[in-house]
Order: sequence, then C-alpha cells, then structure tokens
Amino acid sequence: MSPPLPPLRVDGRLDRVRGAVEAAEAEALIVSDLHNIRWCCGFTGSHGVLVVRSGDATLLTDTRYAAQGPEQLAESGAAVDVTVTATVVATAAELVGDLARVALEADHVSWADHRRWSAEVEADLIATENLIAELRGVKDAAELARMQRAARIVDECLGEATPLLVEGISEQELARFLDDGMRSRGATGPAYETIVAGGENAARPHARPGTRRFVDGDLVVVDAGALVDGYCSDMTRTFAIGSPDDRAVTIHELVTRAQAAGVAAVRPGIEVGEIDKVCRDLITEEGFGAEFGHGTGHGVGLDIHELPAVRAGNTAILQPGHVITVEPGIYLPGFGGVRVEDMVVVTDDGCRPLTRHPKIALHEKTVR
Amino acid sequence: MSPPLPPLRVDGRLDRVRGAVEAAEAEALIVSDLHNIRWCCGFTGSHGVLVVRSGDATLLTDTRYAAQGPEQLAESGAAVDVTVTATVVATAAELVGDLARVALEADHVSWADHRRWSAEVEADLIATENLIAELRGVKDAAELARMQRAARIVDECLGEATPLLVEGISEQELARFLDDGMRSRGATGPAYETIVAGGENAARPHARPGTRRFVDGDLVVVDAGALVDGYCSDMTRTFAIGSPDDRAVTIHELVTRAQAAGVAAVRPGIEVGEIDKVCRDLITEEGFGAEFGHGTGHGVGLDIHELPAVRAGNTAILQPGHVITVEPGIYLPGFGGVRVEDMVVVTDDGCRPLTRHPKIALHEKTVR
Repeated sequence: MSPPLPPLRVDGRLDRVRGAVEAAEAEALIVSDLHNIRWCCGFTGSHGVLVVRSGDATLLTDTRYAAQGPEQLAESGAAVDVTVTATVVATAAELVGDLARVALEADHVSWADHRRWSAEVEADLIATENLIAELRGVKDAAELARMQRAARIVDECLGEATPLLVEGISEQELARFLDDGMRSRGATGPAYETIVAGGENAARPHARPGTRRFVDGDLVVVDAGALVDGYCSDMTRTFAIGSPDDRAVTIHELVTRAQAAGVAAVRPGIEVGEIDKVCRDLITEEGFGAEFGHGTGHGVGLDIHELPAVRAGNTAILQPGHVITVEPGIYLPGFGGVRVEDMVVVTDDGCRPLTRHPKIALHEKTVR
Repeated sequence: MSPPLPPLRVDGRLDRVRGAVEAAEAEALIVSDLHNIRWCCGFTGSHGVLVVRSGDATLLTDTRYAAQGPEQLAESGAAVDVTVTATVVATAAELVGDLARVALEADHVSWADHRRWSAEVEADLIATENLIAELRGVKDAAELARMQRAARIVDECLGEATPLLVEGISEQELARFLDDGMRSRGATGPAYETIVAGGENAARPHARPGTRRFVDGDLVVVDAGALVDGYCSDMTRTFAIGSPDDRAVTIHELVTRAQAAGVAAVRPGIEVGEIDKVCRDLITEEGFGAEFGHGTGHGVGLDIHELPAVRAGNTAILQPGHVITVEPGIYLPGFGGVRVEDMVVVTDDGCRPLTRHPKIALHEKTVR
C-alpha cells in the first residue's frame, strides 16, 4: 500500500481570501463554487455557500451535511462556523445584512442566482472573477503530494499498458485498461475521460475512445490523468503502432522538441504566455503553426483546468508552487496527430515534472 | 453482449424549443448548458453554444470539434449549422444582431457571462429558467432504452454483490465492487459517486464510502446508478448485516411501505407534489416526519437530478414519459438510517419501475 498522504490543511487561506476581498473593495465574499469552498475550508459536500467576512466565516449547508460539515472543518483546521439551513440565500443575506459592499463570484453564480441574491441582499453586489482561483494556483506541499501520486499512478499505468500498443487493440480497450489501473492503484478514477485516439482520430484533440482498432503505422494519442483525494493529474504521450511513416516521425519529433523547450522555459518570474510562445514559435518555424490550434497548457489542481492558462499573451507571472501543463500538439485532419504533455510544478529556480513516463523518439522505435 | 441501443434522434425537439421561446416572448434562445445542447442536437463536446432562431439554428464551437460537431449533428438528425469560431460570444451576437429580444438560460449562464453577453448583444436579454429542462423531463423511447439498461445493470450488480453484505466487508470494498460491475457490463461507469453507508454512517443521506467495515446489526444504505451512453439510472436499497434490532426493522418496514405507496400513486395527470405527500404522510403518522429531511425524489435523465422535483408543493403535472425517483428515507443520527428508492417511468395509466432489485423485508432476513 502507498504511504499515507499528509493531511490537507487550510491554514492561512481565509486570510489570503480576505486580503483579496479587501483589494476588490468589498467587505465580505459569498463563495459559491464548491471547489473554492473545499479549498477554503475542507468541506466536500454538494451543496452550500461560504460567507467570508473580515472577522469570521460561516458555511451554510443543508441537513444532509449537518454531521459531515463540522467534521471536515475540524479536520482541515478551518476557523469557520456551520449553519444548517433550508434557505441558504436568505440566511446568508442576514449574515451580511449590516454591510454595504458584498462580493459574489460572478464566474460561478448563475445569472438567475444573481437575481435571487440581489433580491435578498441589501448591500451593493460586487462582481469578482477568479478571486480564489488566483490563490488556488499556488499549491502547498499536501496538495502537491496528491498531484504527484496521481501523476505517478498514470506513469505506472502507461508503463503497464505498453504491450497493448499493438495492432488489433481498440481505443476503448486501452482506455479501459488505463482507467482500471488507476483505480487498482488507489486513485478515485480518471480525472477526466481518458483520451485514446488512433490513426485519423488522433487529429482530434478531444476525441473520445471508440471501437477503432489500431493498425500498422497509426499514431496513438493517449491523454490520461488520475484523481487522488480530489486532486488531478494530466499527461499525454503519442505512440506509434508498428512502423510510422516519415510524416508521423517528423511531427512527433517536432512536438517532442517544442514540448521539451517549453518545459525548459518554465521558471518563476516569467510571464506564463512566454511558455506558449516558446512552443509555438518552434512549431510555426517548421510550418505547422496552423495545425497547433489550441493553447499550450493550463493550471491543474482540484479542477483539471485551472489558472494560470498557458496561452499567448497571458501576462500572469509564474510563481513557485504553480502547477501547469505544457502540451503542444500538431493535428493533420485525415492523417493523425501528435500531442506530448507533462504536468510540472514551478520550483524556486525552474520546474520539476510530476509526470515522468519516458518519451521515446519514434525513429528509435522503428529501427528496433 | 447487449443488443444495440436504438439511435438517439432529436426530431421535433428544436420546434418544441421554439414554441417555448415564443411563449417566453423572445425571438431566439442562446443555449449554454452542455446537456441542453446535447439534447437539442446530439453534440457532446465540452465547449459551444447553440443559437436557436425561429427559422434556423447554429452550433458555435471551437476548432477541437470541427470534425465531431457536424458528424454528431448528422447522426442525431439535427437541422443545425456548425460555425467554428474562437470568439463564440461575438459570433453568436452577430447571429442575433437583427433581433429585439433574445433569451439566455439564466440558470446556466454565469453572472460574469451575462455581463459579456450584455456587452455584445444589442437585443434585450430575456432571463429564462428551465425552458429546455421542462421539455427534457419527458423521455422518448431511445432515451428510455438507455435508462432501462442503466437500471438493469445496477440490478445485476446488486444481485451479484449479495455475498458481500456480511460482517467485515468495508463500504469502499462494496462500492468498488458495484462500480467495477457497472463498467464490466458496458456502463460508462457510475452515474454519481456510489453511496455505501453502514451503521451510524447510514444516518447521513449523502455519506461517502469509507473504510468502516460492516458489523452485525448494521443497516447499510446502498445508493447506486449507472451511466449508459449519457443517461443515468438511480436506485437505493437498505440491507441489514446479521440480525438487525427492532428499531431497524421498524423503520425499514415503514420506509419500504411508504416507498411502495409513493410508487403506487404515480400516474399521469396528478401533481408531482402529491407523490411526496403520500410518502411523507405515512412516515409522519408513525412519528418519523422530522427524520425524513429531504424531498421524495427527482427527475432523472442526462443529469442525475432533473425536473420534475418530487417535493412538497410542486404543482407540476406528471406526464407519460416522465422518469422520476421515489426515495423516502428515515435517518436517526448515531443509530443509522434507511432509504429505499426506485426510478420509475410514468406510463399512460400508472408507472413502470425501471429498477427491479427485490426489496426483502428485514424480519424475513432475520428468521432465515
């Protein structure tokens, strides 16, 4: 069995949230997003809001969580009260009844719910976006331990799956093997629907595994992540079945080189858009810029897509503890595609890949 | 292997949507919810909006779905054009540029996105809620075939799991066995996190399976559903380990009786709140009204919780094709709990349970 993971603690997080709320010129924040609530106080229920005021915080949830709520808050060390109520909005409105400016997570509250909050809350409602997401971007040691384990599990699954990268195996069979392997190693399951895309399907960045069976010469894109105690991993490798042709070898070599250059560029203090530029420039110089139709990567954590977005023009500055993916790709409709991806954590002087499955050059494979 | 499922077709759905849009006094609807988009046109991608105008409809999505989008629309028979764009909001705004009143799904558009739509769309934005959800409530034969298969898969898994309902097995072990069984029978996986809650954990309606092992006298609540081709099933049974005490037998008998009465009351033409009343009155008469702290059920379909909500005071009228759960429960903190649930489809003259695992009276079990 794996060694126990260090406990997830929320020490100091609410004070960081309060700092951001103050910067948004509000006196309180009503947190609606369930992963944001979890990050703030450890609560994993499916219903509730967290009201963060300058001097206290209250989780409002329903009777289903009357026992679980206080237990999880105690485990995470959150200085948060729990109120069980059937009328969350009205009860939260009372809690902020004496305030003039109250922030709502505009990116997580529906327009319909905004109308309900407006009717109940007397204060001016301030629209914030990504307020907690910015803070969540930087992971602590307990979070990294979960993401490292999730990454290692997929490394092991891919290693074990090597004998299935042959003619006659279907996309669904390989995906199922990987998913089963994640669970048998203690993951909750895949962090997202595992992508196995062979041949012409590999030209689709978000293909779903189908019944197509691998044939000689196929490129096979495998994009898989595991979920461990709420935290995600994310990696992609592109394999070849039998003897890939020159074009396959060429784009695989180019993407692998661009991806390595992107990872090599990751360090604290630079703009995250710079990582995209490093990868994209290399691919564009070789004439495949139009075939690299997505951003270079994204943050990972409780959500599979988090801040910071690794895309052109993003001026956010990388900090130690940020976890991002670097995943350039080239997609040739009707032929196939290549994507190579690692999930890396920014360190004090560079980065450390959390995903470690080896990247074999396809021409090495063909001469074996 | 299972016989092939009938194809999912969307014939007539867009015209029903147009009727509802007209009733909302709007000239077009921008559909944001991905399951609503799927129901309207068959598209299963992770990004896009569907613009439904009186004379046409257009799916706007990004390059990742340039191939998948048109293919899925053709398969479902949707009369929908596809536009691939990196700027969905701006492109959709152009499509409705000559209209005066455009509806947005207020329950699925974030406050932040509403602000973006407001900035781009010249028309008045009309807030609709549950517009497509109301239509989705009534299932067609192809949808019911998937839900029936999902229900049967869980029936089989529960039957196979009977030997595990003994002392020493943990909640997680039983949950894992059920989840594996769903996948091995062709389900995508569980439709939601399988609940296995034993002993005092059974007093929590939404407990997560833990390491607790069953001991003699435990009540064990098992709430499990499968996902088949996008459609969910949902059922709950409560078992006893060894010899349950009188209180356990009493509440199990009461909940089973209330649940059967609720199912017997399901028929077209009645208010859905009536089903809740039938179950709740029986439980309240026996003095456990306060221990039945949740609604009696909910619709099921592409989402595990859909319309209609089976709760007190809901005046929506049941129609043939509605699929709902009937799941009363009694929860005694520190002791345990009982919930019994079936998923039923409303027929022309009553209802037909899709979940069929037998309900054994606990006193029968104890005399064996």
